[in-house]
Amino acid sequence: MTQPDAETADRTDPFAPWRGRFSLPEGIIYLDGNSLGALPRAVPERMARVVAEEWGRDLVTSWNKHDWIDLPGRVGDRIARLIGAAPGTVVAADSTSVNIFKLLAVALARRPGRKVILTEEDNFPTDVYIAGGLASLMGQGHEVRLAPAGGLAAAMDESVAVVLLTEVNYRTGARLDMRALTRRAHDAGALIVWDLCHSAGAMPVDLAGADADFAVGCGYKYLNGGPGAPAFAYVAPRHHDGLRQPLSGWLGHAAPFEFAAEYRPAAGVDALRTGTPPILSMSALDAALEVFDGVDLAGLKAKADALSDLFLGTVRAQIPDIVSLTPEAHELRGSQLNLRHHEAYAVMQALIARGVIGDFRQPDIMRFGFAPLYLSYFEVERAAMMLCQVIAGGEWDRPELKRRAKVV
Amino acid sequence: MTQPDAETADRTDPFAPWRGRFSLPEGIIYLDGNSLGALPRAVPERMARVVAEEWGRDLVTSWNKHDWIDLPGRVGDRIARLIGAAPGTVVAADSTSVNIFKLLAVALARRPGRKVILTEEDNFPTDVYIAGGLASLMGQGHEVRLAPAGGLAAAMDESVAVVLLTEVNYRTGARLDMRALTRRAHDAGALIVWDLCHSAGAMPVDLAGADADFAVGCGYKYLNGGPGAPAFAYVAPRHHDGLRQPLSGWLGHAAPFEFAAEYRPAAGVDALRTGTPPILSMSALDAALEVFDGVDLAGLKAKADALSDLFLGTVRAQIPDIVSLTPEAHELRGSQLNLRHHEAYAVMQALIARGVIGDFRQPDIMRFGFAPLYLSYFEVERAAMMLCQVIAGGEWDRPELKRRAKVV
Repeated sequence: MTQPDAETADRTDPFAPWRGRFSLPEGIIYLDGNSLGALPRAVPERMARVVAEEWGRDLVTSWNKHDWIDLPGRVGDRIARLIGAAPGTVVAADSTSVNIFKLLAVALARRPGRKVILTEEDNFPTDVYIAGGLASLMGQGHEVRLAPAGGLAAAMDESVAVVLLTEVNYRTGARLDMRALTRRAHDAGALIVWDLCHSAGAMPVDLAGADADFAVGCGYKYLNGGPGAPAFAYVAPRHHDGLRQPLSGWLGHAAPFEFAAEYRPAAGVDALRTGTPPILSMSALDAALEVFDGVDLAGLKAKADALSDLFLGTVRAQIPDIVSLTPEAHELRGSQLNLRHHEAYAVMQALIARGVIGDFRQPDIMRFGFAPLYLSYFEVERAAMMLCQVIAGGEWDRPELKRRAKVV
Repeated sequence: MTQPDAETADRTDPFAPWRGRFSLPEGIIYLDGNSLGALPRAVPERMARVVAEEWGRDLVTSWNKHDWIDLPGRVGDRIARLIGAAPGTVVAADSTSVNIFKLLAVALARRPGRKVILTEEDNFPTDVYIAGGLASLMGQGHEVRLAPAGGLAAAMDESVAVVLLTEVNYRTGARLDMRALTRRAHDAGALIVWDLCHSAGAMPVDLAGADADFAVGCGYKYLNGGPGAPAFAYVAPRHHDGLRQPLSGWLGHAAPFEFAAEYRPAAGVDALRTGTPPILSMSALDAALEVFDGVDLAGLKAKADALSDLFLGTVRAQIPDIVSLTPEAHELRGSQLNLRHHEAYAVMQALIARGVIGDFRQPDIMRFGFAPLYLSYFEVERAAMMLCQVIAGGEWDRPELKRRAKVV
């Protein structure tokens, strides 16, 4: 691997103008945009307006006047563009977990003879937990089957109703082959739900091209929608007909304001709506997504790869035996890098004390995310050098750095 | 009914100081706080701080630094005080609809031999829809049984697992007897879920005193938490042991940051948490709830009753045959008044054009909510007089007022 010259790379970086569209704290190098995206500058002004004018001044009339009622669809359409989905196939709603529940239930209902939800044993826990919660609730022999990433294709047999996979793994940064695994699932007669939490807004995703059935993802990582921003859900057009899900709340009704006795699902993805959406959080996400206007996602991923290579190369130059869990081939990974250290938590705390923010994942992983819209090559190189100093100098070896906080 | 003198009543109103804690638009009389509560003045400053400092400056470290992780419990405790619940028995999460789903599932699991969810045929639609969605999903003979308000007690037989009732009806303002119906449900061996959407923050609610099992409610009506504010869920302490619900997302786990393979529910109401909460909307709700510090809820309801009596008395003085759907006895009603008119929608539009905001409910109902924290007797009397003018003058009889908006 040859090291690009950071200064030159920054000078020719096509995403350099985007940095100014984010509000970043002085003196911090933020390598955790894969956990909580940075604040887009458009958000504070939008929030102030939504609070003071839409809520405070126009009050309940804003449901019509500012079209709050269709905000989930408008936000969905903005996200659709980033994940290879047609307009009208994505809706913003609830959390990733809740949306997984809805879509797994939809999938199971469409494969009535089959009882298995197949997922990766290393999938993000909430995916596995929610699949388990649904299977137990249905209580008719449904079960969750776990397989290692390499054994997914082999585990797809005629008992599998639906496959639930996260494209980019949260702990390793490894990226699954969406196209091949979708084809394999379909060959086995199963449906597939893709979790795009670590993909959406970080790289090109082509749901339609991969022929995916369903997808979910969160709004607060690479989409920069703010803490706990609403999540999204995608349904392929071929599944829109008769779409019905069990969290059948009033805003998923075909005509909610008729207040009819019978539930009649709305057409298409609107049937995935449940209760009244959190308009303040949803508006922040809407404003945040403006940042993506004009963004070339392939270029974005190329910059993330270059940043990641630069970081790893800089670390390896000083610590040759550092262990990375992330595949090196660009097509096999997302936009994060996961390095091992036996005191990973304390190392990360020491690094944070120096102004470099990444995060820790059980049991011994330091996770660094490279959000190319607001990171420079210079910062990434500097962060890597600081990591080396922290490790080489034993800076992490202090008791107070080893005491775990509530959220790690 | 004798009319209080509005001016005198305002002069001696113990809630007069609260008006200044809300930001209300000039020239508007807002009688729709039961649909979307007005903006508390504490909210814009808090939102600006959460966005700029907690999210923008402190980024992901805010989960610990500003204790975002326990915000749902802190907000829950603020709400607990308003609904007769002990600290640690309420959590803010998701929407009312989603929380109904969780609690009905919990209740059904605790009454395994019984298959019926009993609810009021006139309950708010989302309650009935969600019950139906859950019953269909479980598909083991579960069913939703509907009974008229007067026939609820009689419908509680040994087949009923859980009763789902809204304390104050959205269309009539009638209030059910929580204590008696809870006792009746328990006598029949059933559990009960109370929906407090039109009660919480409007009147004293005594969940513990009534021995209720579960409750839900929304944050955006009388709690003034902002459009689509997170909802809440209550679980009586006797049901905390082994509490487990099917939307078993990662933040309901006993140790979410261990990222364990097995789901192990958190203790108590934390097990009702599912995905990452919308922190911006949740923070607005938290700030809004400060308004209730020092509020005497019995006094609040007394003022609402007085406002409602004043409104109805003023209307009746000019339109003696106006039909009210709302019981007149204070103990039998909530804080809203529901009047009939064959062109209710157009009348309400004409009234809104004059600066009096109420809302319309199918098929012929004008709904006026009396939020005593920010309404004066003078305003309410004036609004009633304007309603009379609109009706008497036929001001509603214009085609453009009859064209329904998307949200009515």
